[in-house]
Amino acid sequence: MTRVAIDGMGGDHAPAATTEGAIAAAREGIEVALVGDEPRLAAEIERLGGAPGGLSVVHAPDVIEMGEHAARAANRRKESSTYIGIELVRDGEADAFVSAGNTGAVFVVALLELGRLPGVERPAIGAPIPFPNGLTLLLDAGANAECRASHLVQFAHLGSSYMHAARGVAEPRVGLLNIGEEGSKGSQLTVETFERLSESGLRFIGNVEGRDMVENRADVVVTDGFTGNVVLKLGEGLMELLMGELRQEAARSWRGRLGGLLIRPAARRVRDSLDYRAHGAAPLLGIDGCVFIAHGTSDAFAIANALRSAAADVERGTLAALRGAIEAAEGAGE
Amino acid sequence: MTRVAIDGMGGDHAPAATTEGAIAAAREGIEVALVGDEPRLAAEIERLGGAPGGLSVVHAPDVIEMGEHAARAANRRKESSTYIGIELVRDGEADAFVSAGNTGAVFVVALLELGRLPGVERPAIGAPIPFPNGLTLLLDAGANAECRASHLVQFAHLGSSYMHAARGVAEPRVGLLNIGEEGSKGSQLTVETFERLSESGLRFIGNVEGRDMVENRADVVVTDGFTGNVVLKLGEGLMELLMGELRQEAARSWRGRLGGLLIRPAARRVRDSLDYRAHGAAPLLGIDGCVFIAHGTSDAFAIANALRSAAADVERGTLAALRGAIEAAEGAGE
Repeated sequence: MTRVAIDGMGGDHAPAATTEGAIAAAREGIEVALVGDEPRLAAEIERLGGAPGGLSVVHAPDVIEMGEHAARAANRRKESSTYIGIELVRDGEADAFVSAGNTGAVFVVALLELGRLPGVERPAIGAPIPFPNGLTLLLDAGANAECRASHLVQFAHLGSSYMHAARGVAEPRVGLLNIGEEGSKGSQLTVETFERLSESGLRFIGNVEGRDMVENRADVVVTDGFTGNVVLKLGEGLMELLMGELRQEAARSWRGRLGGLLIRPAARRVRDSLDYRAHGAAPLLGIDGCVFIAHGTSDAFAIANALRSAAADVERGTLAALRGAIEAAEGAGE
Repeated sequence: MTRVAIDGMGGDHAPAATTEGAIAAAREGIEVALVGDEPRLAAEIERLGGAPGGLSVVHAPDVIEMGEHAARAANRRKESSTYIGIELVRDGEADAFVSAGNTGAVFVVALLELGRLPGVERPAIGAPIPFPNGLTLLLDAGANAECRASHLVQFAHLGSSYMHAARGVAEPRVGLLNIGEEGSKGSQLTVETFERLSESGLRFIGNVEGRDMVENRADVVVTDGFTGNVVLKLGEGLMELLMGELRQEAARSWRGRLGGLLIRPAARRVRDSLDYRAHGAAPLLGIDGCVFIAHGTSDAFAIANALRSAAADVERGTLAALRGAIEAAEGAGE
């Protein structure tokens, strides 16, 4: 049976949301190891009416806080829930680890404790973005602020393999985030990456710009971790801004208030369809183990979903597929 | 009297929209030189009921198309409306030039014909973004895909000076677009830029992420032209996506349709408040002359607004302010 470890202390709403999410997933038959400060987790479990059969608590006395320096924390806090959770994966006691905590620290600890898949230069964070026309995997979403073309080509192989193995996309379309359509556009990095992707054997559809991305023209969009992270955070900010403005404007007249009331179910459907929480967590691709980052603001619903998504990835043999894809790319001279 | 030249052939809706916009601006007392193919422009003017007093047509037989390679076009098409319009500025026959055409070509021709302000390494495109809390100037919006820290520091000086002189912001807050809050976050470029901005004498508020930007925490946001262009295009794509989805969802039930009808004025106010067309055109900052890029999809309303905005910038002496700011920064050892 698939066993997923969850960082009980990670995220804005931990340990309440993590415990509640873990219980929900365990009730559905996923074996869950809830890692963190045992007394606090036990109190949460009691508050929620007790633990179902599949849930166990693994004690970790320390916590890496959200604002901490990732590399320093990773080196020092070996008793933290992040560290101990990833050790469960390393030692074969869990098949996957999920955390809504300090993304950088999770990344560094995973790199230190699990290492990279053979041949991978730089693992990346893959962010599944639920656009209306379909799911787009954006990577790197923030692990590597500085990238070379060889890194971006590996991101393309990892992302393509992930969308195939974990999300069932037959032949994923790979796009390069760029400014302009032609291969000659953009920076030195994108020009070189465009050339290499053209010869990669992947289904490379060329450059994609903002509009192409939101229309899901590509299943996988590769970019450096700086641009990827800026894009993700801007997208979140803009969505909130627009919904908030609409709400505020509507509240200014009786007509708007009535309209807002009537349109609310439609607005909710749009919001939910674009809700990352319903679409699982972000996999660390290229790490030799299954590790997932959930959003820092995750509630119990989002945590349960991340656990489900992690378990499903394990059951579909995603890690083996990624290993095979990198080996094949290496063999082809990438 | 202020005289503004407009590229009559530039943009998706040229020459109809450019002619109509030019006429509207001329009726308000701006002297407008409409540059382009004279027979076609004359036909448009006739269709629109004739030219008001302040409008003149300057013949240019050639056009640089939207998809053309900027540098090649700039070197060859000396009879184009872009070239001849910018020559009017160079020769003192116009105070400013506005184009909704090929951005890259306008930039290169302006650089060749007008040159840079003394001390400026790389001119940049400044994009005024109308967030609900206030206008944010994002630069570089796409002229320089590759940047050094010294360029970004100059962008900060240019942007700050522009927001002060042209938009009346007393002491503009300058932010660095980055991933994370601390100065140590991001790429080598952002780390070095952060240090330099801290000592620049500008009102540097530190790193801004997507959410800070949409909340108008900074009046000026500096970034390299690659990231800036990605951000702009993604923003446009996301806004359209969300509005379109809301419309579609609302149309699926009588309740939604009625709600949509009632909420329409509020939605329009939100859309208009975020409409770049109402906020003028994007100035080329660091060029030794007043040149503005209007959006490629500009209609007559947007063109007229760009002309108004260009004339106002000229009347406020923006170019002299920019020159002074760069001289002062150079003098301070930047």
